[in-house]
Amino acid sequence: EDEAYFSSYSHFSIHLDMLQDKVRTESYRDFIMTNQHLFKDKVVLDVGCGTGILSMFAAKAGASQVIAVDQSEIIYKAMDIVRENQLDDVIKLIKGRVEDIQLPVEKVDVIISEWMGYFLLFESMLDTVLYARDRWLGPGGAVYPDRCTLSLVAICNAKMHSNRVAFWDDVYSFKMTCMRSEVTREGSVEEIDPKTVMSEPSLIKMVDCCLVSVAELDFTADFSLKATRDGTCTGIGGYFDIMFEKNCSNKVYFSTAPNCKQTHWKQTLFLLEKPVELKQGDLLSGKISVKKNKKDPRALVVRIEITNTGQVLDFQLQ
Amino acid sequence: EDEAYFSSYSHFSIHLDMLQDKVRTESYRDFIMTNQHLFKDKVVLDVGCGTGILSMFAAKAGASQVIAVDQSEIIYKAMDIVRENQLDDVIKLIKGRVEDIQLPVEKVDVIISEWMGYFLLFESMLDTVLYARDRWLGPGGAVYPDRCTLSLVAICNAKMHSNRVAFWDDVYSFKMTCMRSEVTREGSVEEIDPKTVMSEPSLIKMVDCCLVSVAELDFTADFSLKATRDGTCTGIGGYFDIMFEKNCSNKVYFSTAPNCKQTHWKQTLFLLEKPVELKQGDLLSGKISVKKNKKDPRALVVRIEITNTGQVLDFQLQ
Repeated sequence: EDEAYFSSYSHFSIHLDMLQDKVRTESYRDFIMTNQHLFKDKVVLDVGCGTGILSMFAAKAGASQVIAVDQSEIIYKAMDIVRENQLDDVIKLIKGRVEDIQLPVEKVDVIISEWMGYFLLFESMLDTVLYARDRWLGPGGAVYPDRCTLSLVAICNAKMHSNRVAFWDDVYSFKMTCMRSEVTREGSVEEIDPKTVMSEPSLIKMVDCCLVSVAELDFTADFSLKATRDGTCTGIGGYFDIMFEKNCSNKVYFSTAPNCKQTHWKQTLFLLEKPVELKQGDLLSGKISVKKNKKDPRALVVRIEITNTGQVLDFQLQ
Repeated sequence: EDEAYFSSYSHFSIHLDMLQDKVRTESYRDFIMTNQHLFKDKVVLDVGCGTGILSMFAAKAGASQVIAVDQSEIIYKAMDIVRENQLDDVIKLIKGRVEDIQLPVEKVDVIISEWMGYFLLFESMLDTVLYARDRWLGPGGAVYPDRCTLSLVAICNAKMHSNRVAFWDDVYSFKMTCMRSEVTREGSVEEIDPKTVMSEPSLIKMVDCCLVSVAELDFTADFSLKATRDGTCTGIGGYFDIMFEKNCSNKVYFSTAPNCKQTHWKQTLFLLEKPVELKQGDLLSGKISVKKNKKDPRALVVRIEITNTGQVLDFQLQ
């Protein structure tokens, strides 16, 4: 009686959320449809195609062949969708891990992928795109988006800090101070109110997707956050920007910064256990390292050292 | 260098969210602290104790012994917390599955537990509480909360229906109609705007935690939703109410209905693929069955039959 086919909740709702993230999907659409010379008569590889939306844009832009790969069950829906849109003569869908499959071609001209995770690198799907690039991208080919940056800003939000840090000192009259450092060790993915941003941004990483190596995605960088007003810095926010530029007649760009239209990526917040007082013009300086978690390579380990106070903070994004 | 201890993000943030859900935590606190006669000199079992907050309330209310059980790693924090509050002479913490452990006592007088999942029964943790009840609860003992109800209301939200159903007919100029039934098959956990409620509630299940059997938690019930205004019913909302009543001098009650203060449980929404027009006073009638998913007993399979239109809808909560 309940033999009806059911699929995972997260599965389909994630695709709805991603498609309805207009900043994301319209940026890809605008890049492809306003730069059709990059796709016309080209062989295109779509890494992690999901519902196949990027492949269909590429087909519409004149690609001679699009190869779309995904290892999740969603690809069976993508097969239906591609047929429903009569693009099955152009788009070939392959279920499997990029690292395991064979392609029906030797080389491709263009790789497109929407691989970005929280704080850009969470989930490490870029590693898979780079694998595909090194194996199949022909000379003169390109990976899109081609350029990404990761940036930090100082955040001033005393109330939120208190709700997550001081909170543990008096939980319905009990003390739970041992929970405080556990919670502050967790980077949190959330929408950061732009009114709480109190510094200029500091760029910590530029990724050229046509050139970067997997090893370079574990990195250490200095940062310097210049306070735009007096205030108490209670945390550091992280976000990324995405650029479609290489050989483009119409460059396309989007940002996941707090002051831009929110996306499903939101921002990432690293709480400072000890807030830092800043005057307008002061610099909050330090060093950040971002590495894969060795025990779970899809998760990230982030260490932030604040020069001003000497505090060293270890975070986990998982 | 990154040998620092890290724990799962969801882990600690879930406990922060639950503790900061005041409707939830203050209801348990008020029940325990205003009914101290139920706890004074009693042996109490806390099933799924988390940070130990309920056990500490029980200890403060005069319990002679509290046995707190949890199988997740959080119990190590609960051990620290109980010590920090100098309640380790009263509260004994046991890590393990309730089904596997031995208790240091033959019988307990009271069982407390915060076991409720989305749509009340999601996660099936009540099964574990009932196991503990049947094994350890002494004569005259009670399980708290002792009474729970599950209810439905008709929802009128054309815009949201269109965003999730009609959306698939034109996704950036492509058709993805095969996604429509997949998405409508997924019950969704979300805050339902009380302004979209268009009927009186219909109670579909009453659970007496002191008496109910596991078998009775899979059930079928009739419902009848009386429209409080003219409108198009686009979905059916589900929520639960929780009561602390048995032997209480001060009964405590909370509701997760859309018109009450929101809790971390939110509500559950079942979208109707075909909306139903209703006039004020009309009845939307039907039958609902709620069962564990045989392949994943923590997930639920919900079938809703609408008598008015004959539509039969299968949902998955997972």
